[in-house]
Amino acid sequence: VNLNSYENNEVAGVVTGLAWTSVGGDILFIESTLSKGKGNLNITGNLGKVMKESATLAMEYIKANAEDFGLDSEVFSKYNVHIHVPEGATPKDGPSAGITMLTSLVSLFSQRKVKRNLAMTGEITLRGRVLPVGGIKEKILAAKRAKIKEIILCEENERDIKEIKEEYLKGLTFHYVKDMSEVLDIALLKQKVAKPKDL
Amino acid sequence: VNLNSYENNEVAGVVTGLAWTSVGGDILFIESTLSKGKGNLNITGNLGKVMKESATLAMEYIKANAEDFGLDSEVFSKYNVHIHVPEGATPKDGPSAGITMLTSLVSLFSQRKVKRNLAMTGEITLRGRVLPVGGIKEKILAAKRAKIKEIILCEENERDIKEIKEEYLKGLTFHYVKDMSEVLDIALLKQKVAKPKDL
Amino acid sequence: VNLNSYENNEVAGVVTGLAWTSVGGDILFIESTLSKGKGNLNITGNLGKVMKESATLAMEYIKANAEDFGLDSEVFSKYNVHIHVPEGATPKDGPSAGITMLTSLVSLFSQRKVKRNLAMTGEITLRGRVLPVGGIKEKILAAKRAKIKEIILCEENERDIKEIKEEYLKGLTFHYVKDMSEVLDIALLKQKVAKPKDL
Amino acid sequence: VNLNSYENNEVAGVVTGLAWTSVGGDILFIESTLSKGKGNLNITGNLGKVMKESATLAMEYIKANAEDFGLDSEVFSKYNVHIHVPEGATPKDGPSAGITMLTSLVSLFSQRKVKRNLAMTGEITLRGRVLPVGGIKEKILAAKRAKIKEIILCEENERDIKEIKEEYLKGLTFHYVKDMSEVLDIALLKQKVAKPKDL
Amino acid sequence: VNLNSYENNEVAGVVTGLAWTSVGGDILFIESTLSKGKGNLNITGNLGKVMKESATLAMEYIKANAEDFGLDSEVFSKYNVHIHVPEGATPKDGPSAGITMLTSLVSLFSQRKVKRNLAMTGEITLRGRVLPVGGIKEKILAAKRAKIKEIILCEENERDIKEIKEEYLKGLTFHYVKDMSEVLDIALLKQKVAKPKDL
Amino acid sequence: VNLNSYENNEVAGVVTGLAWTSVGGDILFIESTLSKGKGNLNITGNLGKVMKESATLAMEYIKANAEDFGLDSEVFSKYNVHIHVPEGATPKDGPSAGITMLTSLVSLFSQRKVKRNLAMTGEITLRGRVLPVGGIKEKILAAKRAKIKEIILCEENERDIKEIKEEYLKGLTFHYVKDMSEVLDIALLKQKVAKPKDL
Ligand SMILES: [Ca+2]
Ligand SMILES: [Ca+2]
Ligand SMILES: [Ca+2]
Ligand SMILES: [Ca+2]
Ligand SMILES: [Ca+2]
Ligand SMILES: [Ca+2]
Ligand SMILES: [Ca+2]
Ligand SMILES: [Ca+2]
Ligand SMILES: [Ca+2]
Ligand SMILES: [Ca+2]
Ligand SMILES: [Ca+2]
Ligand SMILES: [Ca+2]
Repeated sequence: VNLNSYENNEVAGVVTGLAWTSVGGDILFIESTLSKGKGNLNITGNLGKVMKESATLAMEYIKANAEDFGLDSEVFSKYNVHIHVPEGATPKDGPSAGITMLTSLVSLFSQRKVKRNLAMTGEITLRGRVLPVGGIKEKILAAKRAKIKEIILCEENERDIKEIKEEYLKGLTFHYVKDMSEVLDIALLKQKVAKPKDL
Repeated sequence: VNLNSYENNEVAGVVTGLAWTSVGGDILFIESTLSKGKGNLNITGNLGKVMKESATLAMEYIKANAEDFGLDSEVFSKYNVHIHVPEGATPKDGPSAGITMLTSLVSLFSQRKVKRNLAMTGEITLRGRVLPVGGIKEKILAAKRAKIKEIILCEENERDIKEIKEEYLKGLTFHYVKDMSEVLDIALLKQKVAKPKDL
Repeated sequence: VNLNSYENNEVAGVVTGLAWTSVGGDILFIESTLSKGKGNLNITGNLGKVMKESATLAMEYIKANAEDFGLDSEVFSKYNVHIHVPEGATPKDGPSAGITMLTSLVSLFSQRKVKRNLAMTGEITLRGRVLPVGGIKEKILAAKRAKIKEIILCEENERDIKEIKEEYLKGLTFHYVKDMSEVLDIALLKQKVAKPKDL
Repeated sequence: VNLNSYENNEVAGVVTGLAWTSVGGDILFIESTLSKGKGNLNITGNLGKVMKESATLAMEYIKANAEDFGLDSEVFSKYNVHIHVPEGATPKDGPSAGITMLTSLVSLFSQRKVKRNLAMTGEITLRGRVLPVGGIKEKILAAKRAKIKEIILCEENERDIKEIKEEYLKGLTFHYVKDMSEVLDIALLKQKVAKPKDL
Repeated sequence: VNLNSYENNEVAGVVTGLAWTSVGGDILFIESTLSKGKGNLNITGNLGKVMKESATLAMEYIKANAEDFGLDSEVFSKYNVHIHVPEGATPKDGPSAGITMLTSLVSLFSQRKVKRNLAMTGEITLRGRVLPVGGIKEKILAAKRAKIKEIILCEENERDIKEIKEEYLKGLTFHYVKDMSEVLDIALLKQKVAKPKDL
Repeated sequence: VNLNSYENNEVAGVVTGLAWTSVGGDILFIESTLSKGKGNLNITGNLGKVMKESATLAMEYIKANAEDFGLDSEVFSKYNVHIHVPEGATPKDGPSAGITMLTSLVSLFSQRKVKRNLAMTGEITLRGRVLPVGGIKEKILAAKRAKIKEIILCEENERDIKEIKEEYLKGLTFHYVKDMSEVLDIALLKQKVAKPKDL
């Protein structure tokens, strides 16, 4: 899937992540949507157990911090959330899409735009910490191939970046974070998407 | 199954797809029906996990864009939807029936006729993008054997068509699309089916 | 199980099918009953996934065409349906009992008698088409051994009959069909069963 | 388990069956109890799928023929039924306990005594037919060892009895049946159990 | 786990059982607690299917005989019961903890003390019979090592005790039972536990 | 994950445990959160069956002893609890996180701070006893590496500590406990966390 043809920050909830597969790094997209319902969470994209748990963690974090995001907590019981990771033929698992999922969901509920040309990878915890993940070198190479300009990583992954040859890092800006709130400050614009939903 | 004996655009929800199997390409049919209920989705035809996820994605997309299709969103909680892929002896999986399922469901809910002698193959995303799929050459040969005249593919699959000898393509018209709305514009006629249901 | 000792068209819902097993053809029986309930469907007889899907398809078809069978659609939410295929020691699967199940269910809901000395085999679709099935030669031999006189098959299975030696077909009448409605016209008598239930 | 120490027709629902195992025939007991509830069916005793289906069939048959047993059909939604087959260390499967389960349940709901020194084996169908089962010779030898005096079998199993040496059959009376109603006429006494429940 | 440090008949529901494992006999403890709820039964301790069925049987027996235990049957729908078998690292299965579980539950619901220095092993049936179990010799040796003084066994296990050398039995008193009511008469004191719950 | 960067006793429910893995000892964190709901328990972190059972046991213990913790028992039906063990890529199982989970949950419901530089390992029972666990030597070494100062263990694990060379124990204080209440007395401060939730 081509980034330019795919990425579109005119809609809420579409965020670019970085994945590590047995054949190297790759970019992946997280999409999420809301529909009127009773608070169910539906997850598709041929995901494994750990990746589904990441989605649950992200959702719980948003519920627990609803006020900080300016959200009325009633919204969680009035809408169903659907998270999808495209390219259904590929099984996907692991915790590294955690921050990507959270960013997608906060964009969705706040209807704020996601920064363009940005990718991210990092595990999340229930308390909002960001944990380091593996496969950093391969993920960075994939990000460059996809014309990504900025990357969000866990602070503890800075050591992995330092081991990569400088020429591979040219044109990339790195943001090192410890907490989910820092991810959201970087990734989400103040501006709402076109035709924002009124939740 | 013979296309002529099967296809019948007098009823809503019957759409022709293209499948790739270990013994070559094949056509397949998606059927869907509505019955009074509480909004359940029932999927049969010996389908694997990824193909069932496609059905869920298609259904979510329709719910999220109900207004664009002139649908009252109450309809989704008053009817059960059943999607079936005939030839139950054959296990079926993969994301490539996504656009076929979506077309079937929009035909069903709008009671619009599906264009005749048309087949399609492509993955869908939650946000309505169409993604490229594999096995294009085999699928095209199967479509020709079945007397298909028009084929809808993802824009990114055009490169696969260009690699096929011209003589195999004679008599076929290709439509390359990026978004689900383009698929529906091509595949669905304005005309309603015979004895349309009043939802 | 002996056909004469088993078959009894004095009760609704008992229909004879034809099965193909690893040791040759066989006849099988489909039984169904109604009990007051909330519209649940219970299926027993050591059936595999595809055969259970056939039962679901048959049930959906009847619901979608209730009016054509003179049925008040409220009946489906006021009764539970139980479908059973005797000889529980034998695992059973495949789509070929589809028309047998549908005939059983329409007999049950309409309380009409099933024609005697009749057997059938064919896959059904959600839209009521009958699809061809395999193992025709073995099934015909089993039907003869069981003193069956008439057999319903999909139109596309006629070619399989033409390949069977004439002497094996003596005494058998074949009905070739395309749609479920034709099956029901042949298999169900106008006459109600003894002591018909008033639904 | 010793028959004399176990069997007790002073309580409803305890019936002796005959089982065939890899090490020969054996007797088994079916127990059932009622407790106030919502009509749930609970089945224990390390049973396989087919044996659980037999319990379901038995229960459905009783519901469908409640009037014939003098039962008010409201009773089925006001009580939970629990069926247990003792000796939990042994996995048990197969359809041959069908008539034993049905007899247990009718005894339970009618609170009628079960005839003493009686055992039985046979598959049941949804419509109340009794089907033949295997392992007859081994089951008969086990019945004799356990001091059983009368045995109920399917009519079609008579041929298996005829192949057994007369000396092994001395002291045993056989009842051959076609329908469940015959089983119940033989197995259940008119007399109620001690302290019958008033359902 | 050391018996003296563990056992405490000041609380209801803690009962000592005897288990047979691949490395010899062992004692085990059954614990149970009540919490306000809707009558759910929760079972933990890494238990297999048969051992979970024992817990269900014990619970059903108590419900069916509530009056005999002086229990108001409303209590079963107002409390949740949790049964736990400590040492979660060890998988546990088999029917022999049946009488231990039942004793635990009757102690819990009646808030009566359990006799000290007592252990037991035996399968239970739905009707309250006690069935013999295996591994008796190993279980007795484990009981002695743990300073157990009295042991409850099924009457039919007496033959297994007679095959054990007298010196191994010194200091042990055996109770042989046929029915659950005998187990409870031996194992439960009339005295209530400290701070009995008022159900 | 680095202890200093992770541990933060300003929030309730974050507790440090000790784990034994095939590559040696390690520290792990238990996090828990509350969100308005109906009393559901959600557990993530790629946990096995036994570890999930520990979470259930901890929750049951708190419910059964709500008064002792100054908790209104209505709180359990008005909030959902989510327990998470970070580092989702690593499967985790075994009973030894029991006391860590309980401490996390009591901190959460009471909003009391957890003592800093403290780690613990021990199985819990339904009745609040603490049972010994394995891998003590490796766990102690991991605790030292992580700058832990105090460790809570089951009394019966004292013998394992005595077998470790004194130099490895320098700077560590051990607390040996028999009951959960002792764990909580040691691990939880009287002081509430910053911005305590008012449940
Ligand atoms: Ca890709
Ligand atoms: Ca990622
Ligand atoms: Ca085909
Ligand atoms: Ca397709
Ligand atoms: Ca047969
Ligand atoms: Ca058939
Ligand atoms: Ca036996
Ligand atoms: Ca039997
Ligand atoms: Ca032990
Ligand atoms: Ca035991
Ligand atoms: Ca670690
Ligand atoms: Ca631990």
